[in-house]
Amino acid sequence: MTPAGVSDAQFARALARFADVVGAEFVFSSREDVDLYRDAYSPLWGQPDERLASAAVAPASVEEVQAVVRIANELRIPLYPISTGKNLGYGGSAPAYSGSVVLDLKRMNRVLEVDEANATVLVEPGVSYFDLYRHLRETGSRLWLDVPDPGWGSLIGNALDRGSGATMAHLRNHFDAHCGLEVVLPDGDLLRTGMGALPGAKTWQSYRSGYGASVDGLFAQSGMGVVTKMGFWLLPEPEAFRRCAVNAWRFEDLHRMVEILNYVENTRLTTGFPELTSPLNGQRTIAAFMEANEHGAPPRDLEHAELLAAAEGGYSPELEAYGRRAGLPTWSFHLSYYGPPEVVEAQWRATRRLFSEIQGTSFEDGEIIRMPLAERDRGKVHDADLGIPSLRIFSAGARSALVPTPSYGHLFLSPVIPRTGAAIVEANRVFREAGIALDLPILRNFQLPTCYWERTFLFLIGMGVTRDPAVDGKRIAAFKALIRIAAEHGWSEYRTAPVFQDAVLDVFSYNDHALRRVQERLKDALDPNGILSAGRYGVWPRHLREGRG
Amino acid sequence: MTPAGVSDAQFARALARFADVVGAEFVFSSREDVDLYRDAYSPLWGQPDERLASAAVAPASVEEVQAVVRIANELRIPLYPISTGKNLGYGGSAPAYSGSVVLDLKRMNRVLEVDEANATVLVEPGVSYFDLYRHLRETGSRLWLDVPDPGWGSLIGNALDRGSGATMAHLRNHFDAHCGLEVVLPDGDLLRTGMGALPGAKTWQSYRSGYGASVDGLFAQSGMGVVTKMGFWLLPEPEAFRRCAVNAWRFEDLHRMVEILNYVENTRLTTGFPELTSPLNGQRTIAAFMEANEHGAPPRDLEHAELLAAAEGGYSPELEAYGRRAGLPTWSFHLSYYGPPEVVEAQWRATRRLFSEIQGTSFEDGEIIRMPLAERDRGKVHDADLGIPSLRIFSAGARSALVPTPSYGHLFLSPVIPRTGAAIVEANRVFREAGIALDLPILRNFQLPTCYWERTFLFLIGMGVTRDPAVDGKRIAAFKALIRIAAEHGWSEYRTAPVFQDAVLDVFSYNDHALRRVQERLKDALDPNGILSAGRYGVWPRHLREGRG
Repeated sequence: MTPAGVSDAQFARALARFADVVGAEFVFSSREDVDLYRDAYSPLWGQPDERLASAAVAPASVEEVQAVVRIANELRIPLYPISTGKNLGYGGSAPAYSGSVVLDLKRMNRVLEVDEANATVLVEPGVSYFDLYRHLRETGSRLWLDVPDPGWGSLIGNALDRGSGATMAHLRNHFDAHCGLEVVLPDGDLLRTGMGALPGAKTWQSYRSGYGASVDGLFAQSGMGVVTKMGFWLLPEPEAFRRCAVNAWRFEDLHRMVEILNYVENTRLTTGFPELTSPLNGQRTIAAFMEANEHGAPPRDLEHAELLAAAEGGYSPELEAYGRRAGLPTWSFHLSYYGPPEVVEAQWRATRRLFSEIQGTSFEDGEIIRMPLAERDRGKVHDADLGIPSLRIFSAGARSALVPTPSYGHLFLSPVIPRTGAAIVEANRVFREAGIALDLPILRNFQLPTCYWERTFLFLIGMGVTRDPAVDGKRIAAFKALIRIAAEHGWSEYRTAPVFQDAVLDVFSYNDHALRRVQERLKDALDPNGILSAGRYGVWPRHLREGRG
Repeated sequence: MTPAGVSDAQFARALARFADVVGAEFVFSSREDVDLYRDAYSPLWGQPDERLASAAVAPASVEEVQAVVRIANELRIPLYPISTGKNLGYGGSAPAYSGSVVLDLKRMNRVLEVDEANATVLVEPGVSYFDLYRHLRETGSRLWLDVPDPGWGSLIGNALDRGSGATMAHLRNHFDAHCGLEVVLPDGDLLRTGMGALPGAKTWQSYRSGYGASVDGLFAQSGMGVVTKMGFWLLPEPEAFRRCAVNAWRFEDLHRMVEILNYVENTRLTTGFPELTSPLNGQRTIAAFMEANEHGAPPRDLEHAELLAAAEGGYSPELEAYGRRAGLPTWSFHLSYYGPPEVVEAQWRATRRLFSEIQGTSFEDGEIIRMPLAERDRGKVHDADLGIPSLRIFSAGARSALVPTPSYGHLFLSPVIPRTGAAIVEANRVFREAGIALDLPILRNFQLPTCYWERTFLFLIGMGVTRDPAVDGKRIAAFKALIRIAAEHGWSEYRTAPVFQDAVLDVFSYNDHALRRVQERLKDALDPNGILSAGRYGVWPRHLREGRG
């Protein structure tokens, strides 16, 4: 395969010139090598529309990245940068535009600076959460990471795709927790943002706004540049961690529960990652959310199963009464606290007092786990809550009694919905009805959203990838229909896989697609030849805009 | 005055067309009207280089802004939007480029939405902190603002200029606390950012990253668009507030004090605005920082005065010994806490424990002030700490025994320096020496930085404006020299007045001024005719780039 519009000879010339820059062993063009860049979770696996790379090139330095980008401009070779390519569910290491040469940055894997006293770090794109975690532990640092599940991805790649983690609110949004970028622009020029634009800057990783128009946001979820260095804010090890739960028993308590949740989060009374579940309705925890929509949690007994099946909109007085008898709360909100033991104790006491206004609320006082983590305390809470990278999340989709036939991957529909109980009820209604209309096994049970970020909910719906073209094709069509249905309710995706990136940008249509028109103007200004990450997040270079979607 | 390159006839035609849009009474072109837009703090007052408007136009709606911008494009009239124009010290209501027509947005002053449960607001540019505060109190809202000193400015104007306030860390950086923009682009097109690009969006004020490349940062400290709506995150009223102090006695304690400060802030043990002072060295509090560099605090007695005068670098063993005898700590860090009484009590207890590792530390246990604020508690702490807008700051520069001849305004040099004790010592040395070399009355006493934002210090140096051209001219030249001196040490301004905006951008010179080159490319892409905010933060439209600086 060669990129569209590029002759075999020209492509061979490009690869040869790439090899001159990075060394022949780091230009990959054989079938078996290039296959490694396929997206293992692709719902188009093996089909004509699967997004495939034509080759890959792996530079070892910023200068090599610049040289490769300049050659690509000269010979009009489409490039698609990846950091470690572990972005499963969102395209992995495969390009958004078939025929692109993957610019694989995994060899650039140095931890360049750690500022222990101010809790910042500067890394290259190939540094994974595991890499940085090991580096910090081996050097005796007391700094924590904020890690996503799973932890094998790149800090830079995850942040640029607007990924999130599991510790404190001000660090969970990984792009927002960055401080300073170095970017190879699509023409090969080199930019440092924030205070990094000052030669010899002493505050590149500590003051992030820089001076004048801030361009950092342009490089998230986009093809505006190749990020080669990125600073992040870390968390100094807190003295202790505690995870507690508030249980409520009446369906209508949801509304006030969410309001109090917002209050305790927005005033920083709780700083950890809240987890909302409904034991009565079969909603499992985030650690097992994959496939949860299809499988749910098993009902406790036949009575429970029958009551669940009959409960309209997830609720009936009989179901609620059953929950009280069986000790299954309708709502269970887990809240986390980081800090000195006396502080987390006081924060939880105040939290209990606030939630106690809801009649009948009960509480689970979690153990105060002191840091540094003792061996005996490992596994008492999720590793990610303590900033420890792990691959354990993959067990969630593994073969089990609940999941007899594991999927080949998943698609995430993840509309952002308001932080209200009403929005949760409405989202359940809308997606349940849509699931029935589209004949999709989604939302069998009442589902609660995740709380990655403050002020908003993310209504995650996972769908398995089967590698059966008929089934997957139906799911792709349904997914696109759900994007439109969500948009009709004022909800939209914050992130999606390449196969849906055009469809999502389509619904951001305010004022005749002003956002896309602006993104395109900026894209043209920075990437006049349109060589970088064509199609990423729905923005195509001028010469490919006609075929969009 | 007419804009350069615009004939009197063409200018008259433009004003007539503006009048057709907004009504003749909202186009201001008489000398006495236009004079109201002069920058009262200008160090060039009355001199040929003073930045002056040619006229002003005050639209009442987004559509009127669009119409004015389109006319300006057609007739090539330079526009300079202001919100309320209260940006004193940073140019006020005067344009960066003389001859611009001020686009005065003060009539667009509606509070469009308040979400009480999720603590967000959507406002127009003419809404001041006072306006929103009154609106919230009159409607019975329990939401707090984060207000700058003074509080008469616009929320939007302040945020776009990277202003800051005084409550919790996650809200003090006003641009970072925004969520969603509506922008009239320089060609008159209308853009909504973030989730606002989705028609009927339900999360415009709650999810700020939006989808794909985020353009919000482009509109801060720039001339890329006219912001006509902006969402902000507010603070639900906490149960209590407490302000306490940690005192340390030895000069060398500074280093560890700062490290512990960083720890307690970065782990969110303290969430308020830290205030660093040195009672021994005469550093007054932030509330009186204007002119502090010139006047300092009076020494307690003759011995103190002599010891201060003799103390090299702000320190001598004799001065320290005097401080112990006189009860004047060398360092006094005030820390603030927001939350339930039992939580702020525990947070302060833990803070005391952490700082106690420094030998001899003493503490001042501040009163826990409960909310809602009782009348008897008014004035116990700064209004801004409780989110109450005020104009009291203006008393700081008023006539007093300490300040016998008040200035006409001030210039702020405010380099961002690292969050270390060493950086504080170094900044004092560098600016004291520079002050002597430049014959400037700065840094008479040892000075401590402010802590507007996490992870960084701001080393604020104020200089008075005298309206004596010889004195002010010397100060302007010295200010520019200090910008370069700071840059040589890796420190730079985060914000500055128009008269210094080119000079500051000049020092952001990494890779042949890559940042400016990128900002110019983006400017050209969004403002091809170069009609908006020419020169703002050092970015000039193509046709004026030659005369830059």
